[in-house]
Amino acid sequence: MTEMATMSESRVTGRAIIASAPEMGTEGCFHAVNPRDGGILDTAFGMVSPAQLRRATGAAHEAFDVFRDSPPALRAGFLARIADNIDAIGGRLTERGVAETGLSAQRLESERVRTVGQLRLFAEVVRKGDHLEARIDPRRSDSDATPGSDIRQRHIPLGPVAVFGASNFPLAFSSAGGDTASALAAGCPVIVKAHNAHPGTAELVGQAIAAAVRESGLPGGVFSLLFGSGRTIGQDLVADQSIKAVGFTGSRSGGMALVRIASERAEPIPVYAEMSSTNPVIVLPSVLDGASSELAREFVASLTMGSGQFCTNPGLVFVPAGKRGDELVTEIADALGSTVGQTMLTDGIARAFDDGVGRREGITGVTVAARGRTGSGPNAPAPVLFTTALETFLADPSLQDEIFGSAALVVRYPDAAQLIAVMERLHGQLTAAIFAGPADFADVSRILPVLERRVGRIIYNEWPTGVQVNHAMVHGGPFPATSDSRTTSVGTLAIRRFQRPVSYQNLPDELLPPALQEANPLGLLRRIDGVVLGMSPRPGVPL
Amino acid sequence: MTEMATMSESRVTGRAIIASAPEMGTEGCFHAVNPRDGGILDTAFGMVSPAQLRRATGAAHEAFDVFRDSPPALRAGFLARIADNIDAIGGRLTERGVAETGLSAQRLESERVRTVGQLRLFAEVVRKGDHLEARIDPRRSDSDATPGSDIRQRHIPLGPVAVFGASNFPLAFSSAGGDTASALAAGCPVIVKAHNAHPGTAELVGQAIAAAVRESGLPGGVFSLLFGSGRTIGQDLVADQSIKAVGFTGSRSGGMALVRIASERAEPIPVYAEMSSTNPVIVLPSVLDGASSELAREFVASLTMGSGQFCTNPGLVFVPAGKRGDELVTEIADALGSTVGQTMLTDGIARAFDDGVGRREGITGVTVAARGRTGSGPNAPAPVLFTTALETFLADPSLQDEIFGSAALVVRYPDAAQLIAVMERLHGQLTAAIFAGPADFADVSRILPVLERRVGRIIYNEWPTGVQVNHAMVHGGPFPATSDSRTTSVGTLAIRRFQRPVSYQNLPDELLPPALQEANPLGLLRRIDGVVLGMSPRPGVPL
Repeated sequence: MTEMATMSESRVTGRAIIASAPEMGTEGCFHAVNPRDGGILDTAFGMVSPAQLRRATGAAHEAFDVFRDSPPALRAGFLARIADNIDAIGGRLTERGVAETGLSAQRLESERVRTVGQLRLFAEVVRKGDHLEARIDPRRSDSDATPGSDIRQRHIPLGPVAVFGASNFPLAFSSAGGDTASALAAGCPVIVKAHNAHPGTAELVGQAIAAAVRESGLPGGVFSLLFGSGRTIGQDLVADQSIKAVGFTGSRSGGMALVRIASERAEPIPVYAEMSSTNPVIVLPSVLDGASSELAREFVASLTMGSGQFCTNPGLVFVPAGKRGDELVTEIADALGSTVGQTMLTDGIARAFDDGVGRREGITGVTVAARGRTGSGPNAPAPVLFTTALETFLADPSLQDEIFGSAALVVRYPDAAQLIAVMERLHGQLTAAIFAGPADFADVSRILPVLERRVGRIIYNEWPTGVQVNHAMVHGGPFPATSDSRTTSVGTLAIRRFQRPVSYQNLPDELLPPALQEANPLGLLRRIDGVVLGMSPRPGVPL
Repeated sequence: MTEMATMSESRVTGRAIIASAPEMGTEGCFHAVNPRDGGILDTAFGMVSPAQLRRATGAAHEAFDVFRDSPPALRAGFLARIADNIDAIGGRLTERGVAETGLSAQRLESERVRTVGQLRLFAEVVRKGDHLEARIDPRRSDSDATPGSDIRQRHIPLGPVAVFGASNFPLAFSSAGGDTASALAAGCPVIVKAHNAHPGTAELVGQAIAAAVRESGLPGGVFSLLFGSGRTIGQDLVADQSIKAVGFTGSRSGGMALVRIASERAEPIPVYAEMSSTNPVIVLPSVLDGASSELAREFVASLTMGSGQFCTNPGLVFVPAGKRGDELVTEIADALGSTVGQTMLTDGIARAFDDGVGRREGITGVTVAARGRTGSGPNAPAPVLFTTALETFLADPSLQDEIFGSAALVVRYPDAAQLIAVMERLHGQLTAAIFAGPADFADVSRILPVLERRVGRIIYNEWPTGVQVNHAMVHGGPFPATSDSRTTSVGTLAIRRFQRPVSYQNLPDELLPPALQEANPLGLLRRIDGVVLGMSPRPGVPL
């Protein structure tokens, strides 16, 4: 098999990928670092020059019309082939990923399963074609006083997309992660700016994509992978006139820098930046009846999983004041006290965690309720649990800032009315979780509308870490959780970020795109005169 | 009937509407001007103070949760009632509209028909509920290795929306125009900043909306109408923390000022600004065979309709070089030469037209091919036709700027290859029209992908003025035509601008919103496990 032959040669070389071909960056080089011991890994990665960047974006522009016009089956096959190629190098990916990120082999294996699963899910979406959202308003009959025109609408891809690899998801949100998969599914060429913390992992996956481009007979410009500094080549990429949208997962300062650059372009473009969230967890009184110990154990597991380096890490917990709330906090403190710090992704991330914890310790009214043990190696800070009262939380907005890692703040609230009042002042969040029982339903009903205005996903009696990739998932939310609350970066709705509607008026059938032709050759669900009609099982029967 | 009784008292008073109640603005006043003669119309309009603005936005915030939670039938009835109330004051609206805008009574009558039609169309959409885009991914069966959670998604409204009345559509894009109708349909309270050119028309329609709010038993904060300066109260409105999105139709400078304010807020919000477009028309060779005279007549009619004050006015025409192209240009020049200027909407708009024409006359290589006669009164400048060669057009980007009014530039092109090359350099547009016959289909096929990347609507053998309000229409397009190419401001898809997705994980059925409850009490089309399922005619049968 071609792809296996190709992928069997895959190894980390330090070369960027420009228009699906390997090419050493000419603007200096850098090495990856093993965060477990601070050791320098051996391959030198060449950083691309502005000229190399322009060749990548130029090739993406050139490839765009061919790629977006490719038949759904071809594009779906391309996505599935990327998944196959990634599976073919599974072992090497895990090995390199462990060395570059400090994450466990088991975590990287499961992240790979998610990554290839989401590529295959998008392949299914492309095959079915619902994302084209075809709509047809036929010309009214001639007897109508105002016959009007035949108007047909479909969604088309925006154009080449810049994707920034995320430090905390070296597979699921990097070279072939959710942003790349949804942009390619939409028909957008992708240029990835690799995260400097896992360049080798990024390159291996980039090779899998480039091989799939070649094997599918697509133009090379459909994919490029660049190494370089975010402040130079990353910003140049967003400013490049060929780029029409940006996907980013990372810090608020990094995301907002890209938003600014994108808005100052001659032609502003959308930036989908997923930035920061404290993911409040609300514990209502009835769950304190006997479940405290299990709740405490589960919370600490969710908080410390993967060293707390999840966008959906539960960093803020609201617990009732009073004796039974005290018992829960004690249980949590006991559980957290026996944890050991795990290696964080980078030295910089570990330092930022220490800084954030240090600042919080200095705030009057905030208490350190428990601290785990520092782990081995240079970058494994101890998990921390803070507690505070509602008034302190309301008085200091910095207590809403995310501390990326295993740190959480427990806020004690006296009653539901005051809890709701504080919910009204929460910043935008990816998630909120409610732990409650039937006795709390009246309060939950009052809390839900307040949370809906502030979060992208509301969770009941489950912990927020862990995101399913399906059709109904929302991984998004109001600012500052993301830069665009109207979207999700996980799940099939993510494809919509990279599309826009175009309508066609009075166009002869043979000039229409297949999605809108009278005979419906793609077999799409289409909204005809406002009613969704499908091809099967009974063609033309409205739902 | 209550609404008739209410609306029979409707008259222009100069009062703003704050939380559905009339209230005189306290920050000075202004009068409307009749552009036909420059005469001051009699009512003094009170401009609202910052405190009055804050009461309006505060009331909108207060009303939001109740309004968005209102049953679909109630909200649909509310939209239909607005339409009924507007119909009930039709004569008065036309009379006041004519005096304030200089538009004809016939035009205002037909604009009212469109306005009430679009309100009733959105009422239908709300009743059906497809815009909620309900999605359900059920928990996998227990036998599955990774059972996952039950995840359900719906779209919710963003929050209170600021709408800026458009000078050129005193009904269809002002108090109860497309932005207001789609925002209310989504469940967003609306605060309209009236356009100062037609405050009386805005007030009458505002009264119709306020009456419908009361008659529907909705909280007053669902609607407010403010008078004041765009630079003060308009900008304050966009900066107000209760406002969550903005709809605007107007100039590029005005739209970009709002975009800037919105992006600099503590919580940035989306601005949907529809700004400027020259709506290129491409004439291909085969239509020059005998149809020139009809084409010329139709073009001049489209260009001068409503004094050319349409977003979709055809301001740029590409005509083949050579003898038959010359004949078409001569026919156009002849037809345009016999036109008479009609009164423009305001003195400022007429002056901007004169300035734009004057600047273009001074450009070397641009020729005035024809000029109509100046109309009567102070604000009725003569229509103008410019011609130029392709090289001149390419060399001077200002030739792509819109001159709002009846001015067009004919660009002569030597062949299809050079035509396509210039298409590649067109700025973003609302529309592009192609006039062609079967002999041109090969060229059209090459032109279409280039145009798709630059426009929101592609029109074949029809003129761009005139926009149908239906499900498939796109009135949008890449920057600078709009500030957000992913949307349309006309048609039912416009509702999506004011929504965002929220997902619910593992929530008990009785706590779920009706749209997502297991029994599907709203009878919605829902995407279940990726497959769209409907309630009728055969419940549960996948399409």
